[in-house]
Amino acid sequence: MYKELTTSNRILMGPGPSDAHPRVLKAMSTPLIGHLDPEFVTIMDEVKTMVQNTFMTKNNMTFVVSAPGSAGMETCLVNLLEPGDEVIICVNGVFGGRMADIAERCGAKVHKVEVAWGTVVSPEDVKKALDICKKPKLVALVHAETSTGALQPIKEISDLVHNAGGLLMVDAVTSYCGIELKVDDWNIDAIYTGTQKNLSAPPGLSPVSFSDNALKALENRKTKVQSWFLDLSLVKNYWGGAKRAYHHTAPVSSVYALRESLRIVLEEGLENRWKRHKEVHEVLKTKLESLGFRYLVEKQYRLPNLNAVFLPEGNDEALLRKKLLNDYNIEVGGGLGDFAGKIWRVGIMGESCTLNHVNMLVSALHDMKEFRN
Amino acid sequence: MYKELTTSNRILMGPGPSDAHPRVLKAMSTPLIGHLDPEFVTIMDEVKTMVQNTFMTKNNMTFVVSAPGSAGMETCLVNLLEPGDEVIICVNGVFGGRMADIAERCGAKVHKVEVAWGTVVSPEDVKKALDICKKPKLVALVHAETSTGALQPIKEISDLVHNAGGLLMVDAVTSYCGIELKVDDWNIDAIYTGTQKNLSAPPGLSPVSFSDNALKALENRKTKVQSWFLDLSLVKNYWGGAKRAYHHTAPVSSVYALRESLRIVLEEGLENRWKRHKEVHEVLKTKLESLGFRYLVEKQYRLPNLNAVFLPEGNDEALLRKKLLNDYNIEVGGGLGDFAGKIWRVGIMGESCTLNHVNMLVSALHDMKEFRN
Repeated sequence: MYKELTTSNRILMGPGPSDAHPRVLKAMSTPLIGHLDPEFVTIMDEVKTMVQNTFMTKNNMTFVVSAPGSAGMETCLVNLLEPGDEVIICVNGVFGGRMADIAERCGAKVHKVEVAWGTVVSPEDVKKALDICKKPKLVALVHAETSTGALQPIKEISDLVHNAGGLLMVDAVTSYCGIELKVDDWNIDAIYTGTQKNLSAPPGLSPVSFSDNALKALENRKTKVQSWFLDLSLVKNYWGGAKRAYHHTAPVSSVYALRESLRIVLEEGLENRWKRHKEVHEVLKTKLESLGFRYLVEKQYRLPNLNAVFLPEGNDEALLRKKLLNDYNIEVGGGLGDFAGKIWRVGIMGESCTLNHVNMLVSALHDMKEFRN
Repeated sequence: MYKELTTSNRILMGPGPSDAHPRVLKAMSTPLIGHLDPEFVTIMDEVKTMVQNTFMTKNNMTFVVSAPGSAGMETCLVNLLEPGDEVIICVNGVFGGRMADIAERCGAKVHKVEVAWGTVVSPEDVKKALDICKKPKLVALVHAETSTGALQPIKEISDLVHNAGGLLMVDAVTSYCGIELKVDDWNIDAIYTGTQKNLSAPPGLSPVSFSDNALKALENRKTKVQSWFLDLSLVKNYWGGAKRAYHHTAPVSSVYALRESLRIVLEEGLENRWKRHKEVHEVLKTKLESLGFRYLVEKQYRLPNLNAVFLPEGNDEALLRKKLLNDYNIEVGGGLGDFAGKIWRVGIMGESCTLNHVNMLVSALHDMKEFRN
């Protein structure tokens, strides 16, 4: 028999999840109601409106996938792609690579635009790809690469993609509610995100939005969507429409938590939230650099909320990370892929984006005799 | 701006979710830890062992899909099926139909064994199908049809399927932890369930188990699994193995809740829990029948925990259901498909399976002047 659940009181400063607000945790413990209860339908409607507000979109096809961000990624791709479609996928880290993998599983012909991890894709890179694949069904980009801390400019590439008649798909998992993101202004056709980053809700859901043009592509499909669970032609009647049709059972408690986290974001205001992430980043950056850390990404393309940094020479990153966790209860992330063992990913996202978080981490590093400055 | 979350204090006696135990709700409000934190890895290991115990299986490939039961269904099918595979799907309600739909999306050639809703598939039905499709890759059955309240016997059909060299796949969403279910004894090769029925945890996760033979079929695939998110060859390194490999971000809070609900099941004991569901069902049945309700399913194939019943003549089921919800806070389920507007589905599952629940419902019906006995 197992004992009661006990966990250490962690300070979450990795690539996510981030610390959840006590109000969000409290909302999760609300007793269940039925997923087709009129009260729950109202909650879904409220969540939908708040997701539209935080995506800055009027897209009616805005909803929440009942699974984590990776399933949101797959939702966009399986609904928009059919076997034989040509697509351009920009790859500058783990998540671009994952999009390419999924697109291939949809039977699409994938043209990859690959640039070095830690850099971003330039409009010129996309132009070159459009010279080869002149009429892509879609072009996919990662707005905020969680594996490298790079912030991808969108607007100029969006224009190129639309001029070529393609749809623009964006991964906003680590940018949503922490960094400027304007779905309608930037003409994004399909976007997905997660809940466990700047939103500071528990992981497990993926807000998604489709433009009218993306919906048209869905309506014009010749083949069925390969996933039943993620098929938007079915899900859309569950998340909207005059008459709700049962599709699957929504994760009631997780939706409660999402609703509360969205309320907190809108109380603060999106622009204030973006500003807070920038300001706290400046303080963190100054302190980390004074300790000898060096940023992976060039200044102008740096994510404020996910700081990918090389440790000062002569440090054992795995040992330090373990000690931070065990002695100080502070979690920071390690590197992925080629950067495994070389960088840390320090997240200051949502509720984890405070001066106290910065000071806790920096003070702990100062304390640790194993850390070489 | 939206107000604080407020919900009515519902009594959940529909087809799920059922009432959650306060201990489960409390576990959900535990602060987050990282999904790769050694403490979370331990929690995943504990959950895996408890899922093995409750499925009564030693299958090493036992894990939890980070999405609701429908995604568990899709996990089994996309991993086991490849284009061109021949399969037999038994359909006696909504969920058998859903399995057939997904199998077709996998490119399989589907042979349906269709019987009337409210009845079960007989070994003779399966034999006939095996005369046409002699070597199916798999045969799929719904153990407990949530849409009709029918309990499908498994053992004899399992022998037929294995003699024909096929794999047996079972939907146990509404039977798991409420009705006798023995994965190893019954030689089930792939099984999935949900958390929001007899387990009384919030909806959102799907425990799944694969036999070694099912794993062999997975290893012998010629094509990639069409879903990245549900690809077991990737997920298995996240839910087990010597070295945990990041796949997606697990829904930390939902796993907390699942752990606590499994603890509660094992404290009660599986057999005691099966017995409780049977005993409370007998009381409910007697009282409903004395009020003029009539069961849809023949006695020997009746689910104890999901009671599909015709209302006494002259009742407006939708009106009564609405009044039950609004005046008494009691949720019961309506019918699906051909039974919409004709039957109720009264769930007594997990924490909702008590004599008090039965009495609340029956007393409310006695009270309501609109109810015609």
